[in-house]
Amino acid sequence: MKLDFDVVVVGAGVAGMTAAIYLKRGNANVCIAEKGTPGGLINLSSDIENYPGIKKTAGVDLAFSMYEQVMSLNIPFRSTEIKEIKSLEDKKVLVTTDGEITCQSIILCMGRGPIKLELDNVDRLTGRGISYCAVCDGALYKDKDVCVVGGGNSALEESLYLANLCRKVYIIHRRDVLRGEKMLVSKIKEKDNIEVIYNAQIIKFNEENDRLSSIDIDEEGSIRNIVVSGCFTFIGYKPANELVKNFDILDEKGYIIVDKGMQTNIKGIYAAGDIVYKDAFQIVTAASDGALAAISCMRSLK
Amino acid sequence: MKLDFDVVVVGAGVAGMTAAIYLKRGNANVCIAEKGTPGGLINLSSDIENYPGIKKTAGVDLAFSMYEQVMSLNIPFRSTEIKEIKSLEDKKVLVTTDGEITCQSIILCMGRGPIKLELDNVDRLTGRGISYCAVCDGALYKDKDVCVVGGGNSALEESLYLANLCRKVYIIHRRDVLRGEKMLVSKIKEKDNIEVIYNAQIIKFNEENDRLSSIDIDEEGSIRNIVVSGCFTFIGYKPANELVKNFDILDEKGYIIVDKGMQTNIKGIYAAGDIVYKDAFQIVTAASDGALAAISCMRSLK
Repeated sequence: MKLDFDVVVVGAGVAGMTAAIYLKRGNANVCIAEKGTPGGLINLSSDIENYPGIKKTAGVDLAFSMYEQVMSLNIPFRSTEIKEIKSLEDKKVLVTTDGEITCQSIILCMGRGPIKLELDNVDRLTGRGISYCAVCDGALYKDKDVCVVGGGNSALEESLYLANLCRKVYIIHRRDVLRGEKMLVSKIKEKDNIEVIYNAQIIKFNEENDRLSSIDIDEEGSIRNIVVSGCFTFIGYKPANELVKNFDILDEKGYIIVDKGMQTNIKGIYAAGDIVYKDAFQIVTAASDGALAAISCMRSLK
Repeated sequence: MKLDFDVVVVGAGVAGMTAAIYLKRGNANVCIAEKGTPGGLINLSSDIENYPGIKKTAGVDLAFSMYEQVMSLNIPFRSTEIKEIKSLEDKKVLVTTDGEITCQSIILCMGRGPIKLELDNVDRLTGRGISYCAVCDGALYKDKDVCVVGGGNSALEESLYLANLCRKVYIIHRRDVLRGEKMLVSKIKEKDNIEVIYNAQIIKFNEENDRLSSIDIDEEGSIRNIVVSGCFTFIGYKPANELVKNFDILDEKGYIIVDKGMQTNIKGIYAAGDIVYKDAFQIVTAASDGALAAISCMRSLK
């Protein structure tokens, strides 16, 4: 089977679906390739309340709405994994699990995933107490007790964010000193409702009624139980860059480097969404990337 | 009456409402001030089909959904015009039509407006044939005849976009040469379905059933009628910068200059949305700006 398109969008998260919508509406011959479920990371958010125009929705529902929109535009959706980008010439060749696709331009929207704790019920409790985004989910834990795992800038910033909302924030950190910026560290120490627990790690997530109810931590060898409704893990994210890891388009953290028009240093290869480093990884910022990449890509199509 | 907030958002378009939603969810004491109708420029779009997650909506309906979301978060909405920013110190003072408001930070989201032709029924036909955004509304005129007014880069880019969708695109230009980039001009000349009419201007919009049906143009002194379903006017936009026109924060076109965190060179004054120049003025790019400004503003609140 051989297929040819103007543009192939790799990944059907928010950025990818937005790019595909813009491209199709601009009359480009576009296809979208996704190896998993449409929606990407938003499928991990139980309730989304910060997407303007939609008061409250479950991540999976917003993902499905976007997918329906893609379908309503008759955009070919290929459930396949892109294994390799074989040619970077004017006509690019993508090797998939079921054949080759050729195209003029590629928009890379593979996103990123949170690094997870390796504990038994982590996946099942995600969206049921375990979260990877305070700005997305924090408001669901207003006036409740939560914990944050990590000691870097993200963990500290998100802890400060949560401390303005939650009754108490425990920071569980495996080292004896916080790694984040001094200003952040001193802000953390000023907050009455933040308790930093050093040299500690979570060893068990306890649950009640299918939701997180408490954590067991190992604190310098002794076991302690802490009742929390939410656990926010900020031990890093990993950009899903496997497909392009041999190309000279990644920064030192593995994110794809793009110009203002979302193009990489390889002509015709664009990137959008969470695989591009940004100050705030949000649904609206990913959607914005997708629109910009599509518009800039369309301007260069032959 | 005297009011004090952490943050005042000036303007309740997409950027302003998004910023307010993010700020409130971050527990900031935020108010939003708007002199007109919430929604801003999207109120001019009859059908919106490129906002991811919402398959099809009228601009006014999307505007109202966002407004309802703002209301549901109990964000104070002040129907007032900000006349002056009186102090730029740590405590900023805003003079409104009904009293003063003080705050730590201001997010400027006044947007911009299209420069309109000065003809009788322009306002009434806006959204009924007259449009100011090809990427937003172009798909509504698929396989139909449309005209574009203007001869600069925007007019040419949008004409090329429309030429891929529409049966025929007339460019009505009042000079004898197109002002846009050479590459754009040659692309325009290559297109079989674009006809440039030089030294011409629209003198009348004709209507049938409350929709645009044709235009009368004055072409070097002689009158010509052209049947079109859509008329896209690109004779420029005017950023609504009156409030800050004496501050040293504007570029040569009157847009507000901001850093990556959407802050101007005045500490505590941010800007977001269409009042900040960008490659694509879209709903998602405005929303993205609003979220970024809010997140960056929250990090600096005392």
